[in-house]
Amino acid sequence: MATTPRLLITCGDPAGIGPEIAAAAWQDATLHAAARLRLVADVALMQQTVAGLRKNAAENRLAVEAIDPSDPRPSTPGTLLVVPSPLAAEPGPRGLATAGGGRFAAAAVLAAATMVREHLAEGIVTGPLNKAALAAAGYDVPGHTELLARACGLADEAVSMMLWLPPGPGLHHSDGLGVVHVTLHTGLATAVAAITQPKIEAAGRRLHAMLRQLLQREPRIAVAALNPHGGEGGLFGDEEQRLIAPAVTTLLSEGLTVAGPLPADTLFARAAAGGYDGIVAEYHDQGHIPIKLLGMHRAVNITLGLPIIRTSVAHGTAFDIVGTGTADPSSMRAAIQAATRLAASTA
Amino acid sequence: MATTPRLLITCGDPAGIGPEIAAAAWQDATLHAAARLRLVADVALMQQTVAGLRKNAAENRLAVEAIDPSDPRPSTPGTLLVVPSPLAAEPGPRGLATAGGGRFAAAAVLAAATMVREHLAEGIVTGPLNKAALAAAGYDVPGHTELLARACGLADEAVSMMLWLPPGPGLHHSDGLGVVHVTLHTGLATAVAAITQPKIEAAGRRLHAMLRQLLQREPRIAVAALNPHGGEGGLFGDEEQRLIAPAVTTLLSEGLTVAGPLPADTLFARAAAGGYDGIVAEYHDQGHIPIKLLGMHRAVNITLGLPIIRTSVAHGTAFDIVGTGTADPSSMRAAIQAATRLAASTA
Repeated sequence: MATTPRLLITCGDPAGIGPEIAAAAWQDATLHAAARLRLVADVALMQQTVAGLRKNAAENRLAVEAIDPSDPRPSTPGTLLVVPSPLAAEPGPRGLATAGGGRFAAAAVLAAATMVREHLAEGIVTGPLNKAALAAAGYDVPGHTELLARACGLADEAVSMMLWLPPGPGLHHSDGLGVVHVTLHTGLATAVAAITQPKIEAAGRRLHAMLRQLLQREPRIAVAALNPHGGEGGLFGDEEQRLIAPAVTTLLSEGLTVAGPLPADTLFARAAAGGYDGIVAEYHDQGHIPIKLLGMHRAVNITLGLPIIRTSVAHGTAFDIVGTGTADPSSMRAAIQAATRLAASTA
Repeated sequence: MATTPRLLITCGDPAGIGPEIAAAAWQDATLHAAARLRLVADVALMQQTVAGLRKNAAENRLAVEAIDPSDPRPSTPGTLLVVPSPLAAEPGPRGLATAGGGRFAAAAVLAAATMVREHLAEGIVTGPLNKAALAAAGYDVPGHTELLARACGLADEAVSMMLWLPPGPGLHHSDGLGVVHVTLHTGLATAVAAITQPKIEAAGRRLHAMLRQLLQREPRIAVAALNPHGGEGGLFGDEEQRLIAPAVTTLLSEGLTVAGPLPADTLFARAAAGGYDGIVAEYHDQGHIPIKLLGMHRAVNITLGLPIIRTSVAHGTAFDIVGTGTADPSSMRAAIQAATRLAASTA
C-alpha cells in the first residue's frame, strides 16, 4: 500500500475509561506516522473527554474535529478526528453500566465494521465495553468479538482471540508473545472436560497463522501441558499423552514449528526469555496469569477468524477510575500498533 | 539466642547439581554472618566437587574440612565444614539416577533430622534429590518432605510446603511472596474435584502461620479464585460461591487479614506489586506459573507442619548440566537465608 492504513478506533462504553484512553493514546506521534487514525465516536463526548483531560494535565491542547469517513487526510497528534457515530452518546452518569452506554458502544463498532467492509478503513481498534450495559441495550452477545462475528455473518465459534503481549519491559523477547486458548470463558472443571485433540490443533493453527502475519516470519510455537509437571509421565493425569502430544504430532506433520506438551510452570518463563513466539494455553488463567504478570497494562486482544482486522484493549471499562486521570493508555496504544502492523502486512 | 543458628545443608542426590550449588552458595560471606553452616555430606565427594569448581573458576580456593557435629565454631566462606554423612557417597556416574545416589541422599537428610532433634543444629536446608533414585534405594516416599515427616513420626498429610519467593528483581515487594496450595501433585481434573472448604481454610491457616513467623508481623493474605474472572458471578463455575468465599469468611472470623476469592490472572500481579504477602493457590500451576515467572532461580520451598525448620531448593537435580559450571546457586542461597530467618525468629 502506498499510503498508511486507516484505522477506526471505538471508545467502547462511553461511561468507562475508553474515551479518555483513546484521547491519551492519540497524542503519541509515532502512531500517526504509521497509520491514519479516526475515532468513531461522538464529537460532544470527545470534547467533554478532552476538557476532563485538560483538568488533569494543564498543557493539554487537543482539538476535536468531525471528519467524513471518506476524507483521506493523515491524522496528527494535536487533533482528534471524529467520524460521528450513528448514535450520539446519551448524557448519563459516568462510571456506571447503562443501556444507553451499551447502545452507543454497539452502534459505534457496528458502524466501524461496515466502514471497513466498504473499504473506508483497513482495521478496527476497540476500547473496553461493559457486558451488563450491552445486555441492557438488548444485545445478546458476550462482547465485541461475537458482535463483530454476527455482523460479518459468522457463528460465534468461528472467531476467537489471541492475547498478545508486545515487546517491552519484562519480556526479553524482541517480537512479543502471543497466546491462544483451547478453552476460555467457562469454569475450570468444564474447561478441563472440554479439551479435545481437534480443539488443540485448531488453536495451534490459528496461533501460527496470526503470528506469521504479525511477525512476517515462521513463528516458534509451544503447546502447554494441562497437568502439573506435564503430567509426570501419566502419574498426574493423562491428557498430555491422550490429547496434547497427538495434537502436537499432527501440527508437526503439517509443517508447523511446534513443541510440546511442555510443563506450564516453566514454559512461560522460557517463552518470555525468547524461546517461543507463541503458546497454546489449555485454559483461561494458564494464559492470562503469565501475560498479565509480564505486562498487565500492555496486553492486547487480536481477533482471529474475522474477515476484518480488529484489535482491542485487554482490560475492562475500569468504572472506578473514570475521569481521575489515572487510566493507563498503554493497552490502547499497543492495540493501535498491532492493528497498524497487521494492516501493513496484509496490504 | 546469643549465637547465630546452626544450619545443616544436605546436597540431595550426589549425582545431581546439589554438591556444586552447595559449594557455590557457601562462598557467599553474608550467609556466614547470620548462620553457622555445616554440610552433612562426604568429605571425598565435596573434595571432588571443589576440584570440579576449580576447573570452572581458576581463582577458587575452597578448602574442605571434616567437623564434629558438636563443634560450635563459626563457618567461613573459605572452608567447607563437612559433618560426615553416615553413608559415604558411592563412586558412580554423575548425571544419572542410581540406587546409590538415593541411599546417600536419604541417609544424609535423616542424619541431619536426628541432629536437629538432638539440638546440634537449628534447621535443615536440602538440595535436590531424584525420586527415581530414592525409589531405587527402597524409600517409598515422593521426596524429602515425606521422608522427614515419617522420621518425625508424622503422617504425610500432616506436612505440606510453602513456595516462597524472597525479595529481589521482578518482585516490587520488600518482603517476598509466599504461596500455599490447596491441591498440588495430582492431575488438574482430580485437583478441581478435590478442593474443599476445610482444605482451603487449612491452607490459609498454614500460610498465615508461616508468613507470620518469617516476616515477624501480621501478613496480608489473598485466596485465589479457581475459575476465570473469579467465576463471573457463578456463570463460569460455582466453587467461588460454594467453597472459597465461605472459607475466606471463616478465616476472617478467626482474625486473619485475608481477601478473596480474587481473580487469579490479576492477583499475582497485584501481590508482586506489594498488595499481598501470601496467596492461597487452588492448584499447582496456579501458584507455580507466576512464582517461576517472577524468579525461577530464586524460589524456595519451606516445609510446613514439621517440628523442625526445613527449607529446600525449589528445583530438581538438573542431571543435564551437572559439572558444567552453569548451575545457578540462587535457590540454595535463598533457602539458606530463609532457614536462617526462621531459626532466628523461633530462637
